[in-house]
Amino acid sequence: MAVGHYQFPDMLPVAGVSLGTSCAGIKQTERDDLLVIKIAEGSECAGVFTTNAFCAAPIIIAKQHLNCAPRWLMINSGNANAGTGALGIEDTLATCRSLGSLSNHNETQVLPFSTGVIGERLPVDKITPALPTALNNLSPKHWPQAAEAIMTTDTFPKGASTTIEIDGQPITITGISKGAGMIQPNMATMLAFITTDAKIAQPVLQNCLETVVNRSFNRITVDGDTSTNDACILVSTGQSDTSEIKPDSKQFQLFLDALTNVSKQLAEAIVRDGEGATKLIHIIVKEALNSDEAIQVAKTIAHSPLVKTAFFASDPNWGRILAAVGRAEIDNLQIEPIRIHLDDVCIVSNGSRDKHYTEQAGQQVMARDEIYITVALGRGTAEEQVLSCDLSYDYVKINAEYRT
Amino acid sequence: MAVGHYQFPDMLPVAGVSLGTSCAGIKQTERDDLLVIKIAEGSECAGVFTTNAFCAAPIIIAKQHLNCAPRWLMINSGNANAGTGALGIEDTLATCRSLGSLSNHNETQVLPFSTGVIGERLPVDKITPALPTALNNLSPKHWPQAAEAIMTTDTFPKGASTTIEIDGQPITITGISKGAGMIQPNMATMLAFITTDAKIAQPVLQNCLETVVNRSFNRITVDGDTSTNDACILVSTGQSDTSEIKPDSKQFQLFLDALTNVSKQLAEAIVRDGEGATKLIHIIVKEALNSDEAIQVAKTIAHSPLVKTAFFASDPNWGRILAAVGRAEIDNLQIEPIRIHLDDVCIVSNGSRDKHYTEQAGQQVMARDEIYITVALGRGTAEEQVLSCDLSYDYVKINAEYRT
Repeated sequence: MAVGHYQFPDMLPVAGVSLGTSCAGIKQTERDDLLVIKIAEGSECAGVFTTNAFCAAPIIIAKQHLNCAPRWLMINSGNANAGTGALGIEDTLATCRSLGSLSNHNETQVLPFSTGVIGERLPVDKITPALPTALNNLSPKHWPQAAEAIMTTDTFPKGASTTIEIDGQPITITGISKGAGMIQPNMATMLAFITTDAKIAQPVLQNCLETVVNRSFNRITVDGDTSTNDACILVSTGQSDTSEIKPDSKQFQLFLDALTNVSKQLAEAIVRDGEGATKLIHIIVKEALNSDEAIQVAKTIAHSPLVKTAFFASDPNWGRILAAVGRAEIDNLQIEPIRIHLDDVCIVSNGSRDKHYTEQAGQQVMARDEIYITVALGRGTAEEQVLSCDLSYDYVKINAEYRT
Repeated sequence: MAVGHYQFPDMLPVAGVSLGTSCAGIKQTERDDLLVIKIAEGSECAGVFTTNAFCAAPIIIAKQHLNCAPRWLMINSGNANAGTGALGIEDTLATCRSLGSLSNHNETQVLPFSTGVIGERLPVDKITPALPTALNNLSPKHWPQAAEAIMTTDTFPKGASTTIEIDGQPITITGISKGAGMIQPNMATMLAFITTDAKIAQPVLQNCLETVVNRSFNRITVDGDTSTNDACILVSTGQSDTSEIKPDSKQFQLFLDALTNVSKQLAEAIVRDGEGATKLIHIIVKEALNSDEAIQVAKTIAHSPLVKTAFFASDPNWGRILAAVGRAEIDNLQIEPIRIHLDDVCIVSNGSRDKHYTEQAGQQVMARDEIYITVALGRGTAEEQVLSCDLSYDYVKINAEYRT
């Protein structure tokens, strides 16, 4: 169940991008689980990949193929091809070869992605025969089908799309993501694929993506675990009528803002669909000495099981938030200047419960399904945000009960 | 419920230490919630305290009084006196004054400790009148009563006691702890009080305690949260007939080993009584480059909600352990040399599932209520251990449901 209301948006086609899906029957036979995204010749690709040392076979290959003039993204759900060693690499390459040969491209022009069970061989014999159907239904309009095909235990498809004007010409940015669904018996994987028709050189695109990921996907957390398969890809086809976007220009800033906006929507949708989540928790840490310590405090709050269970219980347990701030290992943290708010209710000031705080006011905030915790450290001017969710019975259920 | 079997041990009296309890009715009226420990004149005291910046009032005072020739430890359960600002300090000092005046000692000779609800004023008016009863039943034999009096939502009292011979003379070490019980509406607090009749100078004692805490209490984790009230105190009365224990002597090593043993028992009891715990998980990381990276890997596994829920489900989900190792942020971690065992069953080698691994063998291990995860990194010779427990429905229940 999603936290709050989430509606899959209208998805604007991006010139030079078409999408096709089919059912390979990797894990289930009722719905499509294979997606191919064709991108026009001359497209630029940027990527950010998991930092997990045990990264999956498709991640290793996608990194190698990123600078080989990619023409395809190929994504399967149901099997992560992780923890599969050398055989996993061979399997991924076999599927890249199949798609390359069907489309007259080199296997190195295919960027492969997988999400699902880890530790099991990729069923190449199911994926290869399902490719022609996906190729036959390629369409620039198939974003909704694409968003569905990459779902694992996600409970809804996730998309975001926007258009901006640069020098009087429209530029479109459209993307999909999948998130904190646990494919039994294994781990959550975050994947996001964002495309645009902007003209932008690869190094600039890569730089944009890293900046934006840092502001969106790296600012969400469900349980603090980093998957072996996480990846975010940004493709620019260059087919818009605008001139090339150069770094440090006004146009660049406009593009970056729009891309940030799309990425934040995709990231927020992942948390809304967090395993067992019943509440969306925005954690804002301000008046920090620097960005690093703001993030450190925000993530300590976001990862605290005590804070997360209190939110699940709609319990305005300010002591747990205060204790999380206190243990964030910030040098010379003085507690007196710290103020903590739940939405607009001040809960902590002068090192203890705010004197105007009432249990009733706290309860009113906690009853909401989207809540802002604001921690003002009183040390400086840096500010950062992290988006998290609560810890519920269903989180334990989803992650514990796969055999029963 | 405790994981596995735990029996409160025979507690050997320590010359120069007597204990008295009474019921102050702070949170409940059915059992004692106030403990005073009288220590002989000339005793040395060492302490290790929470690193949480929001430390509780009694922690602030206990630190100040540690070097003022302490004669009393005074502990109440039911109220943590944390998040109470300047008033909290006044309240703690008021109780120290009461005990000092009843016993003809200075208030600075009292080390105060509190555990329980945070954010509420300490009920000085309940504690002060309960002190005479506690003083009237002082006895060197009252360790069991003492262990009960400091419990919050602990489900059993925790103690450890041992005797060693140094130069043909006995030395006794006896201590109690309380742990990961959540006093609604707040946080788990770990307290431990260990006493010995050994002769040992204060700086040496402090050094011993820090070494031992690092090997025991700092190697356990239930949910990764650090309380505002955590404290571990070591008292030596010097009343044994042995000569003074000097650093770097054979006697020192014997004493340190015995103290480590007692501390590990007290620490393990805390994890066995971890909130909602159904399994005790020993995490051993060996063949690390150094101790720090071994601890980092062990704690990443220990804190992973995905690993913890898998253990709750008795699911030999090797992929989650492998992924936790992979995201522990170890520089240049090569995955091929890594081997992971569950008890004696090898689950991972050569970057993927061990070829001899069977689901049945993994299941057999996971059915046990005490399990050893051994991760051999293949990088060096350092080895560290961390003790943890699983994440169950009851963890969420205990920490979420206090209002319902």
